[in-house]
This record gives sequence, structure tokens and C-alpha cells, in this order.
Amino acid sequence: MAQRISSHFHQELEGVRSEVMRMGGLVDRQLQQVLHMLAEADGAQLSEVLAAEQDINRLETEIDEACQTLIARRQPAAGDLRFVLAVSRVIVDLERIGDELKKIAIIAHDLFAAHHVSAAQCYDSHRLASMTAPMLRTALDAFARLDDAAVLALDRADLRLDTDYRNQSRVLATYMMEDPHRIGVCIELMMLNKAVERIGDHAKNIAEHVVYLVRGIDVRHQPSETRHRRIAADDAATE
Amino acid sequence: MAQRISSHFHQELEGVRSEVMRMGGLVDRQLQQVLHMLAEADGAQLSEVLAAEQDINRLETEIDEACQTLIARRQPAAGDLRFVLAVSRVIVDLERIGDELKKIAIIAHDLFAAHHVSAAQCYDSHRLASMTAPMLRTALDAFARLDDAAVLALDRADLRLDTDYRNQSRVLATYMMEDPHRIGVCIELMMLNKAVERIGDHAKNIAEHVVYLVRGIDVRHQPSETRHRRIAADDAATE
Repeated sequence: MAQRISSHFHQELEGVRSEVMRMGGLVDRQLQQVLHMLAEADGAQLSEVLAAEQDINRLETEIDEACQTLIARRQPAAGDLRFVLAVSRVIVDLERIGDELKKIAIIAHDLFAAHHVSAAQCYDSHRLASMTAPMLRTALDAFARLDDAAVLALDRADLRLDTDYRNQSRVLATYMMEDPHRIGVCIELMMLNKAVERIGDHAKNIAEHVVYLVRGIDVRHQPSETRHRRIAADDAATE
Repeated sequence: MAQRISSHFHQELEGVRSEVMRMGGLVDRQLQQVLHMLAEADGAQLSEVLAAEQDINRLETEIDEACQTLIARRQPAAGDLRFVLAVSRVIVDLERIGDELKKIAIIAHDLFAAHHVSAAQCYDSHRLASMTAPMLRTALDAFARLDDAAVLALDRADLRLDTDYRNQSRVLATYMMEDPHRIGVCIELMMLNKAVERIGDHAKNIAEHVVYLVRGIDVRHQPSETRHRRIAADDAATE
């Protein structure tokens, strides 16, 4: 009987895990739609991106409720509790990525429709946004495979993204100085880039939640060198 | 014996509640420091703001760990579990406010030190940032007094904040067109205002968590009319 309950509980945890992966898949597809919009300077996919955001929100609410029910009914032990709490954090970051993608799609749609911005003018923003696709996949893989080392790769990728974002802001500022008529468009591109930059932060957050899930240590709010040291120290302690 | 355990548990919950209020107090004081910086065009308080952000992060980690321990050891029933889960959400938003305040202080410090921006040039940004102070207090009061109606007031306040933010962006764009030499400063002011605008979102989020705590319903991801209707329907159902 006890075993039957525990096996059922295990199925429930597996169910939650696969729902998180489904949510991640939706966000990944939404990101591909946004990349397509930017590459083709085509606003037509806006409605699909908005619909995806709604689906992602709904899934977040459902998974969150499932997590609460699991905690209340099953009173999971330490390791399983950590899994459930990590899930409830991961889905917040996935939802926020969906939110940023929605903002990007709205700005892009406006740039194409009202300001006739071309794919060439979006080139750098598209390139920046493309950098987040492997970051999102790395984060989702880390969750699926309980790979706590992914945070190190995502730290490096996020540093590149931040540097590229800042450089693009400088370049956009020079365009604004050259031609005051482009100021409006350049501000919109800056805001779009800002949303892209935040997607990188959320991908990194997901990898941090995986470290918490695997090791039970909190590596948020730490410079990357400090957390690399903490992970190494935790390795040494458990050897 | 059971009563002694339950009374001890109650004390633990009270302890968590007062730690959250302490964290809220730190964020409130940090906000006052930032407002002072903007009002006086004085970057000297940057180091205090940065120190406050570290304290806030530390407190978030501590409260979060206390919440996990409470769930694991006490296996709280529905209402208490909801309190603990609401706390773990509230502290994330408080921590994010601390983060945005840090960004604002860094940008402001740079504007005063490197660009000799005056208090007059910061007037509108200071005014915008001032709007968030009553929002934060309303949110913290709502948590302290379990006031689930605060979300309605915060919806309205956030709408005013967003409108003011957008208007200021337009005004800043006209300054940029008039004088290309001011473009760099205006971009920084836009980024500063953007961080202010996000503080409003986080205050609103906290009030949403209070609705969840009091009523057990999730009113995130909904336009304000929809959630006002949901709260009214929940009122009618429990009368």
C-alpha cells in the first residue's frame, strides 16, 4: 500500500516535470516566432506570439497549483520538496521570458507597421535575440537532466549578451546623434534590446534553480566567481 | 503537547511575518535614500544604497530558507501553507525592488558625477520615483493587515505610473531631437525611469500575492477588470 502511494506520488512528480518541459517548449517556439519576425521584418506573427503568451501564463498557473496540491497532500520529504519548490521558481522565470517575448513582438510589430523599419535595421537586434535561443535550451536541458554545471556556461553566455547589448546601445546613440529623425525608432530598438537582455537573465536564473534543486544551495545574488567557488566547495565536501 | 507544538509553530509563522516586514522596512529606507539622491542631485549615498541591497538579498535568502524549513518540518495545513508560499513570493518581489533601486542609484550617481546633471534635470524622474513610495507602503500594509482590497488601489496607482512614464519618455525624446549632445543623458534618464516603472509592477505583484494568501485565488496574468470581477464573485460565493 505504502509502495503504491509512493509510486503514484512519483508519477505525479513526473507529471509536473513533463508539464514544465511542455511549458519550456512553448516558450522556445514563441522565441522562434519572434526571431522569425525580426529576421523577416514581418509583423504578421504578432497574434501567434500573443496567443502563445496566454497559453504560457495558463500553464504557469496550472503547474503552480499542482505544486501546491502536491505539497499539501503529499507532504514531500526534503529532496522531493526541493524539486517542487524549484519547479515553482523555474515556471516564474519561464513566464517572464514569455512576457519579454510579448513586449519584443509588440515593439517589432509597431516598428514594421508604423515606421517601416527594414530587416537590415533590425539586423543587430535579431542577432542579439538569437543569442538567447541556445541559452534557453541550455537552461531547459539543465532542468531536464539535473545538470547543475549549466549555470557556469550560462554565466559566460550572459556576460557576452550583456556586453553585446551595451555595445548596441552605444551604436544606437550614434545613429540618434547623426539623424534626429531616427531617435524614435532607435529608442524603440533600445527597449526591444533591453527585453532581450532580460531573457538572458531569466535563462541564468533557471540554471540557478537547478543548482538549488541538485545541491540544496542558494547561488543567487552572488558574483559568478563566488558561486563557482561555492559549487567547487560543495563538490569537495561531498567527495 | 499538541497545543504546545502548534503554539510554537504559530510563533515561527509570526517570526517569518515580522522578518518580511523588516525586509520591507529596509527596502522602504533604500527607496528614501534613492529619492534623496534624485532630489539633491547628490551621488554620495550610492554606497548606502548598495549596502542596503546586499542586506536585502541576505534577508531574502534567510526568509526563503526559513519558509522551506517550515514546510519540511511542520507540514503546514492549507491556510498556513498558503501563508508560507505567499511569503516566498512576496520576498522575491521585495528583492527585485531592491535590485531596481540599485540600478537607479548607479545611473543617478553616474549622471551627477560624469555628466553634471542638476536636480532640475532630474525633477521629473524624482517625481516619478516619488509615486512608488506610497505604492510600496500600500503593498506592505496589505501584507501586514491581510488587506486583499489593496490590489485595486495599486492597479489604479500603477496605471498612473505607467502613463507618467510613457509621457516622460516622449518628453525626453523631444529633448534629444532639440540637442543631440543631450542624447546620452536622456537615454540614461529613460533607463532610470524604466527601473522606476518596474518598481510599481513589483508593488502590484505583492498585493496580488496577498489576494492569493487571503482568498486562495490566483489573480495574476489578468487585466484589472477581470480580477476585480473575480474578487467580487469570490465575495458573493462566500457571503
